[in-house]
Amino acid sequence: MRVILPGPNMASMADTRDPLLGRAPAVVNVGLEMFTDAVRIGGAPVVHVDWQPPARGDTDLARALALLTEDARDPDAPGARVDRANRDALQRLIGATPTLTGIRRARDVWPGFDRTILHAGPPIDWARMCGPMRGAVLGALLYEGWASSEDEAQTLAASGTIRFAPCHHFDAVGPMAGIISPSMPLYVVENAAGATAAYSTLNEGLGKVLRYGAYATEVLERLRWIERVLAPGLARALGELGAPIDLKSLIARAIQMGDDLHNRNVAGTSLLHRALAAALVRSDVDRKDAATILEFIDGNNHFFLNLSMAAAKAALTAAHGVAGSSLVTAMARNGVDFGIRVSGLGDRWFTAPAALPVGLYFAGYSDADANPDLGDSAITETAGTGGFVMAAAPAMVEFVGGTVDDALRYTREMYEITLGEHPAYTLPSLGFRGAPVGIDVRRVVASGIQPVINTGIAHRLSGVGQIGAGVVRAPIACFEQALTTLAESIAR
Amino acid sequence: MRVILPGPNMASMADTRDPLLGRAPAVVNVGLEMFTDAVRIGGAPVVHVDWQPPARGDTDLARALALLTEDARDPDAPGARVDRANRDALQRLIGATPTLTGIRRARDVWPGFDRTILHAGPPIDWARMCGPMRGAVLGALLYEGWASSEDEAQTLAASGTIRFAPCHHFDAVGPMAGIISPSMPLYVVENAAGATAAYSTLNEGLGKVLRYGAYATEVLERLRWIERVLAPGLARALGELGAPIDLKSLIARAIQMGDDLHNRNVAGTSLLHRALAAALVRSDVDRKDAATILEFIDGNNHFFLNLSMAAAKAALTAAHGVAGSSLVTAMARNGVDFGIRVSGLGDRWFTAPAALPVGLYFAGYSDADANPDLGDSAITETAGTGGFVMAAAPAMVEFVGGTVDDALRYTREMYEITLGEHPAYTLPSLGFRGAPVGIDVRRVVASGIQPVINTGIAHRLSGVGQIGAGVVRAPIACFEQALTTLAESIAR
Repeated sequence: MRVILPGPNMASMADTRDPLLGRAPAVVNVGLEMFTDAVRIGGAPVVHVDWQPPARGDTDLARALALLTEDARDPDAPGARVDRANRDALQRLIGATPTLTGIRRARDVWPGFDRTILHAGPPIDWARMCGPMRGAVLGALLYEGWASSEDEAQTLAASGTIRFAPCHHFDAVGPMAGIISPSMPLYVVENAAGATAAYSTLNEGLGKVLRYGAYATEVLERLRWIERVLAPGLARALGELGAPIDLKSLIARAIQMGDDLHNRNVAGTSLLHRALAAALVRSDVDRKDAATILEFIDGNNHFFLNLSMAAAKAALTAAHGVAGSSLVTAMARNGVDFGIRVSGLGDRWFTAPAALPVGLYFAGYSDADANPDLGDSAITETAGTGGFVMAAAPAMVEFVGGTVDDALRYTREMYEITLGEHPAYTLPSLGFRGAPVGIDVRRVVASGIQPVINTGIAHRLSGVGQIGAGVVRAPIACFEQALTTLAESIAR
Repeated sequence: MRVILPGPNMASMADTRDPLLGRAPAVVNVGLEMFTDAVRIGGAPVVHVDWQPPARGDTDLARALALLTEDARDPDAPGARVDRANRDALQRLIGATPTLTGIRRARDVWPGFDRTILHAGPPIDWARMCGPMRGAVLGALLYEGWASSEDEAQTLAASGTIRFAPCHHFDAVGPMAGIISPSMPLYVVENAAGATAAYSTLNEGLGKVLRYGAYATEVLERLRWIERVLAPGLARALGELGAPIDLKSLIARAIQMGDDLHNRNVAGTSLLHRALAAALVRSDVDRKDAATILEFIDGNNHFFLNLSMAAAKAALTAAHGVAGSSLVTAMARNGVDFGIRVSGLGDRWFTAPAALPVGLYFAGYSDADANPDLGDSAITETAGTGGFVMAAAPAMVEFVGGTVDDALRYTREMYEITLGEHPAYTLPSLGFRGAPVGIDVRRVVASGIQPVINTGIAHRLSGVGQIGAGVVRAPIACFEQALTTLAESIAR
């Protein structure tokens, strides 16, 4: 709800003084903004209340909303039960303490994990996959040695002998195409406050990379270097440290340094570099390899993104599965569909078509080249970082577009649809207010405010890569379906 | 000048409608704010202009100010000449590109540099030195081996055989006590855009350190480690890099990450760590030493401060010596006196008593324990960082006190007394406006706005150390003396 305050237009206010009232009328207009113009032309001050009927005026949705937000004076009423469940889920989410405990190969994390390719977003089969995801799948098949040419990889991908599944079905998250294949090393992020763990790949860097659908020789060679040098090296540095790296604390500090932890990770990357460098040098990693590893991290300001995502996932997994809770525990996109999961609604996805981001394109590209919204990285916004903390990351508007006021507005708006404020993730520019955290399906539907997501933009064709970065909104339909389903399940 | 806008107090505005005017009066009050109350009580809207007579109403100062700010339509008038000189000086200041080119011992930088101790601020002799500076001098005498006990050091310091001189007289800057003795290694920061260089010591870390007046055994041992391990290691890493480190670019990025580069250097330290780590590993530095060096930098979020200061000094030296310029090229404190230097006024110091900072104290200390303002670190504010960019460093208010609004207000206020906006140092929170840079003696005197300085607070006794951090203002008297002197020199 946005309220427009009148300017101090004193002279004309005085002119509209009503002889009956003995003072100038002050007008409050609710609903359609056009009526304010007539009042303003008449010279009276007017406050416009940007009100819309809840749930777009849809009566079924409004009924579901009413059921789930009923007066809490009846402690057994559905609304009160949802509130209680949400308090529990939110506490688990903000109470989680994600820590980086190790690095393991995907096939070692999930025994029997073979002939399987994980991807970003809700489930999708090869036939429906978007260009960049297909490109990344081809790259993974070549990387695994399951195909020896692009043609062979194409045939294999379409053969039905490869199992495709969402990363989220394996407690994992992947940026953009989000491809995970058995040989890939994964960060293991454990929640020190509970028994949940999450997994993500190591960030490949910028330019031509698998996650944006590129699969040229240099892409595969870099993946092999990550597998053979980077991952073992970082694992040994972690071992040398002797204690897990506290990602919650690191993320909190990165927010103080202007990261949103989704599209801006320069502080997170710097702090991780600082945390690992000396331990890497103290370990038995070959000295030249240690230098190359440090240069690789230093060369990629997005290196921390995958850890930010795994930390978010580990915290949200802790909040998942609370009966009756309307807290959103995943938002993910496969480049075709946008899907959400809700704490109280099990493993079901609620999907709608993925939208096109609005943002800034690299030279030579435009939105005609852009693939719709892609990647599991919206897990950051789901956990209260990313677009939700843009107020703390004003420098980012140079990357994703918009103004610093937009950045402040995005964060302020997200307080309308969230259940709480993160006690550890505080925003200096808002006087150290906690980040808006815990998206409530009810609030999204009631307000019509769609969660804001910072995102990279992939070319719609396979093999090209990143072409820009921008901002996108989660489709409202996902939240409407979830609301209806929650109302049905509660009413039963 | 602060303008207070009226609230939309519509009803009472209408009531004060004047039958003659046919509309409500709107009052503008200039000068004493108390008169606005009477108008407000009467119900009329009032705008208060917080005006004061220039130069505190002092007629001699006002005459000097008038001379130096005369109508520029006469290109030979003194005011126009000062304006031209300032444009030149400002261009040199913001056009400078300070780069870290090497690390050298003080005695190698300045041949014949022996039996000399440099200190922060304007000139001061042993008898007048404050406690923390005396403590640091004792430490330096012990560190150099010129004395073997505290008593011996006391006697030597008072003997008149040691030459004391300001760092600034040697193109150097030092935080807090600012002590430089011949064996200490110094950063060499050169201005790639000109022929100036500046020097500073390597930051010792937190806790008991020489710069805050501590001289216990652990302090001296750390100084020796800096001399024998840290400095040679970093020098070899710089050699391995093969190119100087561009401090202007690094500082610009650190500001985007919430550093003010005076009291908050976490981003600068992180970026420096990233820039050096791999090169250190590639160099022939002993592997264990390399690890220790990385740990030492990682353990001290203020490590970058001394480089921030040397970068500021190198840029300001480029701006110094422009005939007729009223641009301030140094602000420095020795814990007793605050001194400034001005571009067009040679090497003369204009001094006034140093003030007590207002800030936050560590547990167990209060302002009764505080030494007055100390250190060369106000060189950062002189070059447009430090307190002048607090708007970009909101997280710092947790360290120095105050609110985020204060931080914004400090920066906005500094635009009133500066000659330009820094093209490289932009502030995201102000929509990427350039930092206020180039303090103009005329504007300070005319407005009465004193430059704001972020600072550490030392215990007033020698041997204790840091007890807090806060904010302090440069004394107006320094600027008044400089203004009068400039007017005299121009009139000649």
